[in-house]
Amino acid sequence: MKKLINKVDDVLTESLLGFGAAHGDLVSVTLEPKFVTRAGGTPKGKVALVSGGGSGHEPLHAGFVGKGMLDAACPGEVFTSPTPDQMLAAAESLGATAGILFIVKNYAGDIMNFEMAAEMLGGDHATVVTNDDVAVEDSLYTQGRRGVAGTVVVEKVVGAAAEAGADLAVCKVLGDRVNAATGSMGIALTSCTVPAAGKPTFDLGADEMEMGVGIHGEPGRRRVKMMTAEAIVAEMFQAITSSLKPKSGEPVILLVNGMGGTPLMELYLVYNAARRLCEDRGLKVARSLVGNFCTSLDMAGCSLSITKADDEMLNLWDAPVHTAALRW
Amino acid sequence: MKKLINKVDDVLTESLLGFGAAHGDLVSVTLEPKFVTRAGGTPKGKVALVSGGGSGHEPLHAGFVGKGMLDAACPGEVFTSPTPDQMLAAAESLGATAGILFIVKNYAGDIMNFEMAAEMLGGDHATVVTNDDVAVEDSLYTQGRRGVAGTVVVEKVVGAAAEAGADLAVCKVLGDRVNAATGSMGIALTSCTVPAAGKPTFDLGADEMEMGVGIHGEPGRRRVKMMTAEAIVAEMFQAITSSLKPKSGEPVILLVNGMGGTPLMELYLVYNAARRLCEDRGLKVARSLVGNFCTSLDMAGCSLSITKADDEMLNLWDAPVHTAALRW
Repeated sequence: MKKLINKVDDVLTESLLGFGAAHGDLVSVTLEPKFVTRAGGTPKGKVALVSGGGSGHEPLHAGFVGKGMLDAACPGEVFTSPTPDQMLAAAESLGATAGILFIVKNYAGDIMNFEMAAEMLGGDHATVVTNDDVAVEDSLYTQGRRGVAGTVVVEKVVGAAAEAGADLAVCKVLGDRVNAATGSMGIALTSCTVPAAGKPTFDLGADEMEMGVGIHGEPGRRRVKMMTAEAIVAEMFQAITSSLKPKSGEPVILLVNGMGGTPLMELYLVYNAARRLCEDRGLKVARSLVGNFCTSLDMAGCSLSITKADDEMLNLWDAPVHTAALRW
Repeated sequence: MKKLINKVDDVLTESLLGFGAAHGDLVSVTLEPKFVTRAGGTPKGKVALVSGGGSGHEPLHAGFVGKGMLDAACPGEVFTSPTPDQMLAAAESLGATAGILFIVKNYAGDIMNFEMAAEMLGGDHATVVTNDDVAVEDSLYTQGRRGVAGTVVVEKVVGAAAEAGADLAVCKVLGDRVNAATGSMGIALTSCTVPAAGKPTFDLGADEMEMGVGIHGEPGRRRVKMMTAEAIVAEMFQAITSSLKPKSGEPVILLVNGMGGTPLMELYLVYNAARRLCEDRGLKVARSLVGNFCTSLDMAGCSLSITKADDEMLNLWDAPVHTAALRW
């Protein structure tokens, strides 16, 4: 294992310290317990959005803390759920006056811990569970479908609604609606390597790839021989549209997400292939996002996400956002 | 070689098509010959900034085309200089009324081709050559020092000046001044793989790294055993500050740049180490940038850049920028 780290046990702390120092205008970082909050606090009367999950998916979620998106993020150790006390401390630190919406990717550990935190918290709260990954039902850490890069779309759209004054019930319904309108699928050309493990999570041959991989390296649909980008994208697109069943003429948000080790040049090439497939099917690519947003450490690979977006979602997508990883 | 591509010969074209389609509000992409220009054209009376170089360093340079930064970028094939006709076509397409400033990284092929294009172009033009890499004098493709990630700082600061109405002579002097105030050094944990070559550019043992590597995988200062992030950053910091000789109390822009295959979590950890060294030396980290800006395909590694920044540079750094890869 070759990584830019010092001691394995200090990776998360030192990375968070760097993140906080680099973005001191946007966020505050707390280390005991670990959470990241929006600098200046949650505006009075605004629903507070709290997300989190295992680290190793950066910029998800801390990179999305700021105006127009999240109020707090709780990073667990790499690929490990944050603890209820982290979530509770983060939520309590916000002094939220209009309730708290938890946005949780569908992994058993995250679900259990966020539920415990919500129970301990009391007060007005609700939870949106994201499960956009169409690749497999049930997986290594998940009952049902996994929550992956589509979570970014949920956090952006609901974050804008909360910023505009939507109440907790509206934010909850909207979050569930965006999640249901979103499908994703990922592929891996290489494994990732968890620092504490010191070796690749799984083995892939020099001519193999994993179709439908999870963001922790969980198995996908099948191990296949390496294919062209077009063939890979076609399979991802087919899987997503079989699930979402978008109508011809429907506007979509198209997200090509890098897994961490794949260069931008390839991601734009993948986007080109995905966009053509959308157009061939009569879908209107209304908004696009290409880059590393929900990663899997150093994994080479990517995911494709499609959100069927109505005018309300598109307007919220366009609303200003000011975070470390998304800004417009 | 496992890459998300179709045919090796089509990588650049398909990636540019994707880039243009994803950012149609910001850029126009021309394929014959290949160049990327700012959507809506160069404002009348504004100095036009034109950069370019071999592809494989994305988002550099096309990702920096837009308001407040570049007017055009000319991407060559991977790690290959663009041709004079590309540069000429890009420059002529701008209809620049206040002259053209070329920003060129110091590689022999780029220098020669940009000089030829400038000669063919005639009219008012000037060139800023960046050579911020303190690692080595003379290298595989370079006489003198190489131009690397510090080029991003030059393009941002001069881009803001041009947007604010600075004339060609002022932009040229400013560009040279920012370049002289900037030092960078890179390291590689793995090689990159050029699609047309199909295999890694160089070999690194499982416990080795290259200290001072170039952004095409050119040799650095020495091949060493893998070290901790702190030790790596200390050596980069020492090399840069030996060259720049910043004074205690001096404000700096601190840039931690990923080479393409290194996750953000590690880049923030590197930033944390670099920032501490700056502070220990009495430098004031006035602005920070962490992410993938001047990459080397899928290379794992990073570079550190420090710019001694006066108030003028900091104000220009803060000025609005609206490009695919930098936006505030």
